[in-house]
Amino acid sequence: MSQKYVYLFNEGNASMRNLLGGKGANLAEMIGMGLPVPEGFTVTTESCMRYYEDGQVLSDDIISQIYAAMEKLEQVSGKKFGDKENPFLVSVRSGARVSMPGMMDTVLNLGLNDDTVEGLAVLTNNERFAYDCYLRFIQMFSDVVMGIERSKFDAVLNEIKEKYSKESNEELTAEHLKEAAKKYKELYKQEKGMEFPQEPKEQLIEAVKAVFRSWNNPRAIVYRRMNDIPGNWGTAVNVQLMVFGNLGNDSGTGVAFTRNPSTGEKELYGEFLMNAQGEDVVAGIRTPNPISDLQKTNPEVYDQFVNIAKRLELHYRDMQDMEFTIERGKLYILQTRNGKRTAQAAVKIAVDLVSEGLLTKEEAIMKVEPKQLETLIHPSFKPEALKKAKPIAKGLPASPGAAVGSIYFSAEKAKAAADRGEKVVLVREETSPEDIEGMYASEGILTSRGGMTSHAAVVARSIGTCCVAGCSAVSVNEKAGTLTVNGVTYKEGDIISLDGSTGYVYGEVISTQEPAVTGYFKTIMDWADEIRDLKIRTNADSPKDAKQAVEFGAEGIGLCRTEHMFFDAERIPAFQKMIVASSPQERRKALDQILPMQKEDFKGVYEVMKDRPVTIRLLDPPLHEFLPHEDADIEKLSSELGISFERLKGVVANLKELNPMLGHRGCRLAVSYPEIAEMQTRAIIEAALEVKKEKGYDIVPEIMIPLVCELKELQYVKNTIVDTANKMIEESGVELKYLVGTMIEIPRAALTADEIAKEAEFFSFGTNDLTQMTYGLSRDDAGRILEDYYEAGIFEADLTAKLDRTGVGKLMQIAVELGRKTRPDIKLGICGEHGGDPDSIEFCHMLGLDYVSCSPYRVPIARLAAAQAKIKHSK
Amino acid sequence: MSQKYVYLFNEGNASMRNLLGGKGANLAEMIGMGLPVPEGFTVTTESCMRYYEDGQVLSDDIISQIYAAMEKLEQVSGKKFGDKENPFLVSVRSGARVSMPGMMDTVLNLGLNDDTVEGLAVLTNNERFAYDCYLRFIQMFSDVVMGIERSKFDAVLNEIKEKYSKESNEELTAEHLKEAAKKYKELYKQEKGMEFPQEPKEQLIEAVKAVFRSWNNPRAIVYRRMNDIPGNWGTAVNVQLMVFGNLGNDSGTGVAFTRNPSTGEKELYGEFLMNAQGEDVVAGIRTPNPISDLQKTNPEVYDQFVNIAKRLELHYRDMQDMEFTIERGKLYILQTRNGKRTAQAAVKIAVDLVSEGLLTKEEAIMKVEPKQLETLIHPSFKPEALKKAKPIAKGLPASPGAAVGSIYFSAEKAKAAADRGEKVVLVREETSPEDIEGMYASEGILTSRGGMTSHAAVVARSIGTCCVAGCSAVSVNEKAGTLTVNGVTYKEGDIISLDGSTGYVYGEVISTQEPAVTGYFKTIMDWADEIRDLKIRTNADSPKDAKQAVEFGAEGIGLCRTEHMFFDAERIPAFQKMIVASSPQERRKALDQILPMQKEDFKGVYEVMKDRPVTIRLLDPPLHEFLPHEDADIEKLSSELGISFERLKGVVANLKELNPMLGHRGCRLAVSYPEIAEMQTRAIIEAALEVKKEKGYDIVPEIMIPLVCELKELQYVKNTIVDTANKMIEESGVELKYLVGTMIEIPRAALTADEIAKEAEFFSFGTNDLTQMTYGLSRDDAGRILEDYYEAGIFEADLTAKLDRTGVGKLMQIAVELGRKTRPDIKLGICGEHGGDPDSIEFCHMLGLDYVSCSPYRVPIARLAAAQAKIKHSK
Repeated sequence: MSQKYVYLFNEGNASMRNLLGGKGANLAEMIGMGLPVPEGFTVTTESCMRYYEDGQVLSDDIISQIYAAMEKLEQVSGKKFGDKENPFLVSVRSGARVSMPGMMDTVLNLGLNDDTVEGLAVLTNNERFAYDCYLRFIQMFSDVVMGIERSKFDAVLNEIKEKYSKESNEELTAEHLKEAAKKYKELYKQEKGMEFPQEPKEQLIEAVKAVFRSWNNPRAIVYRRMNDIPGNWGTAVNVQLMVFGNLGNDSGTGVAFTRNPSTGEKELYGEFLMNAQGEDVVAGIRTPNPISDLQKTNPEVYDQFVNIAKRLELHYRDMQDMEFTIERGKLYILQTRNGKRTAQAAVKIAVDLVSEGLLTKEEAIMKVEPKQLETLIHPSFKPEALKKAKPIAKGLPASPGAAVGSIYFSAEKAKAAADRGEKVVLVREETSPEDIEGMYASEGILTSRGGMTSHAAVVARSIGTCCVAGCSAVSVNEKAGTLTVNGVTYKEGDIISLDGSTGYVYGEVISTQEPAVTGYFKTIMDWADEIRDLKIRTNADSPKDAKQAVEFGAEGIGLCRTEHMFFDAERIPAFQKMIVASSPQERRKALDQILPMQKEDFKGVYEVMKDRPVTIRLLDPPLHEFLPHEDADIEKLSSELGISFERLKGVVANLKELNPMLGHRGCRLAVSYPEIAEMQTRAIIEAALEVKKEKGYDIVPEIMIPLVCELKELQYVKNTIVDTANKMIEESGVELKYLVGTMIEIPRAALTADEIAKEAEFFSFGTNDLTQMTYGLSRDDAGRILEDYYEAGIFEADLTAKLDRTGVGKLMQIAVELGRKTRPDIKLGICGEHGGDPDSIEFCHMLGLDYVSCSPYRVPIARLAAAQAKIKHSK
Repeated sequence: MSQKYVYLFNEGNASMRNLLGGKGANLAEMIGMGLPVPEGFTVTTESCMRYYEDGQVLSDDIISQIYAAMEKLEQVSGKKFGDKENPFLVSVRSGARVSMPGMMDTVLNLGLNDDTVEGLAVLTNNERFAYDCYLRFIQMFSDVVMGIERSKFDAVLNEIKEKYSKESNEELTAEHLKEAAKKYKELYKQEKGMEFPQEPKEQLIEAVKAVFRSWNNPRAIVYRRMNDIPGNWGTAVNVQLMVFGNLGNDSGTGVAFTRNPSTGEKELYGEFLMNAQGEDVVAGIRTPNPISDLQKTNPEVYDQFVNIAKRLELHYRDMQDMEFTIERGKLYILQTRNGKRTAQAAVKIAVDLVSEGLLTKEEAIMKVEPKQLETLIHPSFKPEALKKAKPIAKGLPASPGAAVGSIYFSAEKAKAAADRGEKVVLVREETSPEDIEGMYASEGILTSRGGMTSHAAVVARSIGTCCVAGCSAVSVNEKAGTLTVNGVTYKEGDIISLDGSTGYVYGEVISTQEPAVTGYFKTIMDWADEIRDLKIRTNADSPKDAKQAVEFGAEGIGLCRTEHMFFDAERIPAFQKMIVASSPQERRKALDQILPMQKEDFKGVYEVMKDRPVTIRLLDPPLHEFLPHEDADIEKLSSELGISFERLKGVVANLKELNPMLGHRGCRLAVSYPEIAEMQTRAIIEAALEVKKEKGYDIVPEIMIPLVCELKELQYVKNTIVDTANKMIEESGVELKYLVGTMIEIPRAALTADEIAKEAEFFSFGTNDLTQMTYGLSRDDAGRILEDYYEAGIFEADLTAKLDRTGVGKLMQIAVELGRKTRPDIKLGICGEHGGDPDSIEFCHMLGLDYVSCSPYRVPIARLAAAQAKIKHSK
């Protein structure tokens, strides 16, 4: 028997999401629950992949299964596809495993032709409606399936309006629309060299293929790259009987959430429009009414909907996002899914669902997307600054947070400015899927049109970007690059501030403040802490960062980079003197100047961290990074340092390397200049001794040696450290324990971890460098290469962005096993950027590491991700 | 009980080489054989390491064991150490596991003081001799143990000669020497602030420590680095009763080999000097007599020695290198060891020993040092050129081979010139251990003094460098930098030619010719071929290289680099046009120009290789390597290419990378520019089809994709290749098989080899890059880093020079196992430079690779090394 490619809705259920896509699986589930869902069927995601495997051809067995399903639909509905007397129409919609809003294509009203349009007119007793549908269908089919620009059809309609001196589409009569339909078909023939397809089955097959094709349109590919969705998942296609919200004032359409997706409040939240099609609500062309108004408009339908919403939430045990249509007073549910929500809503809903007894703590923890928490830990406006500020307009609070930035009016310009390092606010009438990259690059998004469920609002919430939507008080001229409000015009590059939690727009800079972990957020974090095994440390180089991290729940410092301390304008001269020193004596003299500064840094960090562990890494970057490279700058510095231009130029030239990443840095510096490691050890130990004496904290500094590739060099540098430290501790009379460990960031260190562990008391995986060396790919040079790889379809996303479990992960596993073999109690952590990435954190949990270390703002994310990893792998 | 640190000679044997050192073990063995060896004892290599572990302190238990051994010696000899009446003296010599000639220190005549010198005078009835010994001892002890320059003592002696108006040392009487001894001791006191030690036991302990210290003197460290001798082996110290070759004309000393170390002829070969100490022969101060003359001088001793030599050779089943001393007519053997020999001698001796029934073929194979074969495969002078050439002088043929180069008179200058790329001949009166690096850097070595066993000769033979020694016809002025012969003066930089096989020196350039594998060499190679499992391929980019390699026994090409073909002056413009092309079309046009050239290259290679496999690698280096980087050159090229300076400059800037080694090269180029891979595939396949048609060879091209780190990119590039190739083959109507495989040169490729092997039909380990990435160390930037590591004593040699079994080797093993898991018959080879290194070849054998590939001149070495690996691991 041939593989099953097509499932009637009554053959599926919610667990079949991978095969039927999210939308299809949920439609099937709702049918099973007996809800009023228009009948239909799903062409599986496997069909999509088969379509691509066959060279973008829809195979005969898939086509015949689709036809068979259509016949079943005819039986169920008692109507006939393409029948002049009693036709039915279908919608053809994409539906992948996970929702990719607006990324793929849809065709509505499919099944209309010159005959069935007449039948529809009779059935609905509304000829104008029937021809309006036909026009929409021709235009949509021509665009989506055949690639003819929509605007060409708009031009035809405008001609008709001019011809009959009509101002708006609404004024056109059925006759006018009939004439337009004829012209539409002529335009189609002119563009494509053939007649507009009259055979509904042909229309259907072409539409299915078009949806499959849209899986690989450029914006879908970019969206997948940004959301880690594999290209081989494919999309399903849902073919469903059309119901019409635009059959008059007893019809309508809407979307609603079972809870407020912005705040998490337990209230039915949504919008509807009477006499409209679903696309009208989402596209933001008309501003819709709040769902509560439906109670007045149609209390019966409202009550029915409220009941269904409750059932769905209980059934799915999560907040639901539903689409519905009312056709001549009858309610249909067109979609339900777990609703996207702001981070703020996510934590509240998760906590509430536990209070309501719907979820366990573990289940609730799994409901919160770790990456989303970023919005909760982004700055908000300072209340005092906000008090003084005067808003220039108010829009919808579509995605919470505070944003301050220069305004740009196109996604491209916004992205370019962000790439230059500017903080950017994207201003648009309304965003469209093409704007995705610009939206990602912006601090905030402001639109003048569209509601809480408009494209801008949905995307902004999903990516955690502040958004004020539908701010009709502002007038946006995208071409001119201006935003005008109350007669004041703001130009490209002017700075505005947005409050995504209130919807206020400010024409000035408002200072922001750091967020705090409180309320529901704190509850979730506390639960996560109860559950997780991994400790969470932070990468912090200053007392300020350390303090912020501790407030976010950091349990120690996993990486304190000492070199950042030298870039300070006051300090860099001493460091530069050290570099140009021509003898160890001269170098020591310069280092003596640096020692007290470095010691003060460490004291500050220890004082913040109290008894928590602090890992300090010895100098890592190549020395040339501290020197200028242009002759003019060299000239300037040489006179500041009081040495000749030639000498400094010589030093710079001498430090030049062909592959600095594989050059003279890390512990190699400590070998060449042991006096640097000595000074740093002195600073680390002296600071610890003093703070211990002054404050009584039990400080155990962890001194970390970077870029080790071989036991012997580790031994050598460790000897320098231990000799220096032990002597100081002995002289001080204070007892002080300290550890010496190493980064594992060179493949050979991982491969010889049994050797390395003889001397290293801890390992910290430096997965940034380890990834680059394991891939043989320098991140600084990867940009163009990756672009070509995306283009060629080899990679879908930057494989190095999350921890590569197959390659780098194998090295880590080898290192963990070998390291523990030599030293069973060896402390293991990670301090690369992957330490803040949920997927990578899960892998670290699987490896059994002791901790992950990440930037302060990632600490809450890491706490949650660590708990989720534990839950996932306890099953 | 305390560890045993001291062994009397009669407690040891030849198998205890690691503990007693080579010299000590053989002295013990000879004692066991009943040969006339002066009694003594060995302080073990473990004592040396203990000495270093204890912080350069000789522990009490070692000292007391030394004293105990001295007492045993006193019992055996019936004399007493330090006894005025009946004293005995000892020599204190180093002796590591393997011979390190001249690298470490020796003290002779130890035990002399103001009292025992008198006793010696009485015993030998020769006061002058006794004081001569005393002077030598004071000077040697002061130099070796206390670091006082020898020249200061020479100055004292010169003063005495002046004072008494004597021309030479020989003219000085016992009284004069007595006076000198007093002055020597005064000088000592002046330098060291204390009396010259009179206590023989103190002298002994200090001398032992000095020998241990000399294990780590700079020249010993350099020697070890160059000869792969680990620093933790340590040296033993041999303390042996002194016998004197300078007690008159019935005394003498000499060295001899059981076979000719230059040619391998079976004849006693060596030199002796009557009335001389051993150092006189080795140091080349007096020119010694051939050993055969000893038959006339002292037939009885000669016969005895001949017998002993025969016994030793039979006993050790190898050619022996012996030192002997005749004290007043009595023969003593002071040392025996397997003799160093030229490669020519090595193969002859190995083959002869099999004919003589002393060795099996396998044992004979193990007797030849693979690296040494290089001398057999280096050029010799062309006979016709040699016929016309007129020698300007003749010296001793100390190490065979032919050398043509510019003359330099110091090791430093020779090395500097060689670093600049010059071919260099080092000219010295006599070399010393300080000259080692200069000797390594030179094509040939010419000395005006010293014999066949002088320092220059011994070292030159061991490193396979051509050497003419003791060429007394030339007068060398090292300071002035001139060489004068028959009134003609040659200056620094002038070119001369040396024939190390005849000893002739030429003042002109003589053309050289390629060597061939014939005679004994061929026999050894044939045996190696019978034994080995590994196939030997070659890295060859041209028909010429391929031809040479086939003559040396290559069984295929393991790496044909295609980029070298583009650097040709005629071709690079087309290639540059390809790089600056602004569209695939333009690029294809340029590639079309290159295609026929590249095809001709491949045809040439196929024609040479016939049915042997040929692996061709697609373009590998980053494109910027083909473009100029200086403005002037860019200007020039831009006008040649007919594009604007700005455009070309832009292309160059665009191609610039921070870490080109981890950048846009290898298969990444084939992804960005599939048209390049396409063109190369066309060239490879077209050439194969044509040669197959024309010559009927069964050609199976192996197309190799470089720098793969991920299956998907391999798939992508393989698709380009396969699509192109299959189409061409189909069109041609000729049957042609080909393979597509990959380099394993990025750690991730090794770690994911199970994935990679799904598409790769063969793996070739690119251990150059793999080593650099595994170590995180760029070879281009490693120089200064390694210097510091040597300095710090962390590394003793460039760890990346031979295949690192611990780190890189582990990756290779992972790749072999994973690769075979997916594809059991996958072909595995290595084409990095390690493919020609014997130690690395052994590891490849252990891994079970199918072949190694190396430069043509390394093929014979690889054949031998592969056989040795098989023998070693069959046991």
